[in-house]
Amino acid sequence: MLSRKELFKDTLKKAAHAWKRIVELRLTEEEANLLRLYVDQPGYVDLHWGMFVPAIKGQGTEEQQKKWLPMAYKFQIIGCYAQTELGHGSNVQGLETTATFDPSTDEFVMHSPTLTSSKWWPGGLGKASTHAVVYARLITEGKDYGIHGFIVQLRSLDDHSPLPGITLGDIGGKFGSGAYNSMDNGVLRFDHVRIPRDQMLMRLSQVTREGKYVHSDVPKQLLYGTMVYVRQTIVADASKALSRAVCIAVRYSAIRKQFGSQAGGPETQVLNYKTQQSRLFPLLASAYAYRFVGQWLKWLYTDVTQKLEAKDYSTLPEAHACTAGLKSVTTSATADAIEECRKLCGGHGYLNSSGLPELFAVYVPACTYEGDNVVLLLQVARFLMKTVAQVATGKQPVGTIAYMGNIQHLMQCKSAVNTVRS
Amino acid sequence: MLSRKELFKDTLKKAAHAWKRIVELRLTEEEANLLRLYVDQPGYVDLHWGMFVPAIKGQGTEEQQKKWLPMAYKFQIIGCYAQTELGHGSNVQGLETTATFDPSTDEFVMHSPTLTSSKWWPGGLGKASTHAVVYARLITEGKDYGIHGFIVQLRSLDDHSPLPGITLGDIGGKFGSGAYNSMDNGVLRFDHVRIPRDQMLMRLSQVTREGKYVHSDVPKQLLYGTMVYVRQTIVADASKALSRAVCIAVRYSAIRKQFGSQAGGPETQVLNYKTQQSRLFPLLASAYAYRFVGQWLKWLYTDVTQKLEAKDYSTLPEAHACTAGLKSVTTSATADAIEECRKLCGGHGYLNSSGLPELFAVYVPACTYEGDNVVLLLQVARFLMKTVAQVATGKQPVGTIAYMGNIQHLMQCKSAVNTVRS
Repeated sequence: MLSRKELFKDTLKKAAHAWKRIVELRLTEEEANLLRLYVDQPGYVDLHWGMFVPAIKGQGTEEQQKKWLPMAYKFQIIGCYAQTELGHGSNVQGLETTATFDPSTDEFVMHSPTLTSSKWWPGGLGKASTHAVVYARLITEGKDYGIHGFIVQLRSLDDHSPLPGITLGDIGGKFGSGAYNSMDNGVLRFDHVRIPRDQMLMRLSQVTREGKYVHSDVPKQLLYGTMVYVRQTIVADASKALSRAVCIAVRYSAIRKQFGSQAGGPETQVLNYKTQQSRLFPLLASAYAYRFVGQWLKWLYTDVTQKLEAKDYSTLPEAHACTAGLKSVTTSATADAIEECRKLCGGHGYLNSSGLPELFAVYVPACTYEGDNVVLLLQVARFLMKTVAQVATGKQPVGTIAYMGNIQHLMQCKSAVNTVRS
Repeated sequence: MLSRKELFKDTLKKAAHAWKRIVELRLTEEEANLLRLYVDQPGYVDLHWGMFVPAIKGQGTEEQQKKWLPMAYKFQIIGCYAQTELGHGSNVQGLETTATFDPSTDEFVMHSPTLTSSKWWPGGLGKASTHAVVYARLITEGKDYGIHGFIVQLRSLDDHSPLPGITLGDIGGKFGSGAYNSMDNGVLRFDHVRIPRDQMLMRLSQVTREGKYVHSDVPKQLLYGTMVYVRQTIVADASKALSRAVCIAVRYSAIRKQFGSQAGGPETQVLNYKTQQSRLFPLLASAYAYRFVGQWLKWLYTDVTQKLEAKDYSTLPEAHACTAGLKSVTTSATADAIEECRKLCGGHGYLNSSGLPELFAVYVPACTYEGDNVVLLLQVARFLMKTVAQVATGKQPVGTIAYMGNIQHLMQCKSAVNTVRS
């Protein structure tokens, strides 16, 4: 078991090595992502590549992309994604950090007005990042325009020390002895930190030199497409994590023998016990099922993206509900299943050498991040209720809920069963 | 997060300090146990006081107790409890370590004939213990008499190095960054290690100087009484662990606010959400319920013990089934509940500073140790089936299953409900 410091240094070394190989071998973006996946240890680079770069790509203007992305690609700057605050997780609209436009200097003033407004959790923030995409309430001409993204430099590119007005730190130990302890999840506070106006991500809306807030003609729905994408990858990852756990538990159950010996004969493989089978095999089946679900969601994402580009937003709510619901169901079931696999390995599952304790500790945050599972299920329920209400007004539901269009017919269906006995 | 070595040294320091205070303050055994409880960190002393000493007390002759207990009380020797083997957990009858009597030297030869016969898991074995109570198959006059306990010296009292023929080690990192990583769970192999005959625990059965195997008149059932005691304490501990977790989650839910703000007003306490209440309050109720269950089991243990001493074994099977079943139900539910409390604290529950990750990692082995929960429930089911069969032969069931005596009456009871609607 490494100490926290050793663990973090180990991650830095692995990330640097992977980066070197990616450059040397001139890997494509897709190949580079695969190599990073195989490093198989959470690290600050996950956020740099997985959220900082995509945020600029998705929400930055062409000009902004041209300025920031080359530096990010060459690792001249290291970015993280600072959205969640100490007091605000799921409720993004409740974030308190402010970005107030000052027309006298053409700058935004980033500020943390309360303790609960401290950015809390961003991976890569505690030690590594030089920059962050920070989400804050945009205030101009005395009016609050809600949450927008801003590129903010956090640390000096010379000596890596925090810039004036910026308080930074690591938020401390997390579940597991490895898991997310290799990640420098951090805390960040702003004391009236000034950034140039053009560091607001301006693809969807802008603030003019005069301080006017204007919308671009890029549809806001494109943002939801990204959310669908991220959640789709989480579902695919659930299958990977569950496959690993089930593989370990099945192999253990095939080797491990216990009880059932007749007069000193060999004991019975635990795989042959019905109690073991009834717990293990449904998890094995789920690992396959989630793989197919992940593939289907990938198709759904492609389909929605193509429709969005053609300005057809009709399938977006259903795609959003599908990804939200399936993200919730698959991650909760996978976290429980890894823990069940661990218990199915008896005492041995408690040893780190079984691979299962860290698999659980590193996986289980998926139930909370990118939408708390309970909150997501409530969103699905709301979507279903809304759809039922709309059916009454004649609107035709699409995709997986198209069947609701037959509600009149469905309501008249009767079961042939009419007694308890039958 | 401490490294494994720092963590273990920290435990040694705490155990030594507690020991010093216990001696200085002349604490009673009960007070000393309470002080050790408050150290609140698994350590080798748990096994010394909780299993090594009780095993000698329960299974040693008066002579053996007179010889070994004073040294154990003064910590001149440190003991552990070496039962579980790499290949054998729940199936104690399947243990492979042998203790073969050699009448030519009046010694037992302790041996690990296979890899799977290696002792694996005993706490306190990896680093600290000088002695162990080792469970092995007793072989004398060419016959295997099954599993018996032996006091075996493992390390030199001069320089703490393993004695000849003994291979010892620590089995490595375990679930969590603290949890049982402060414990030196170990591995032990014997290569024909000789111990004097009088180090067999001889209260229930003996091997004579000539190698004859003889039973004493002490009833074997007394051993089951100890098992009832240990499991009763586990149920009481479930209530403690669950109370801690629920206390943290309730206080968090009262402070944490999220969503529900009207036009910038304060957000809603998460405790006021029905989704939070429906998950949290049943756990709060369970924490109280398990406390009462623990107290009832303590009464049951006292009652059984008194009856056993009067050679009345009638209530033992039912007491055994009650403790086995309640151990299984309360520990499984508590482990799940701690994890649920962790998730009820959102992302913050994932930080070690919430107290919940380590509470889970240190608690969850209770589902496996002292009887795997699934195996225990199967034992309860077998007991119930056996009781039903015995009722038919006229034997009256006692205690919690006394109601089965009314089976004729019960079978004739009918529900007033006879339609789906009612």
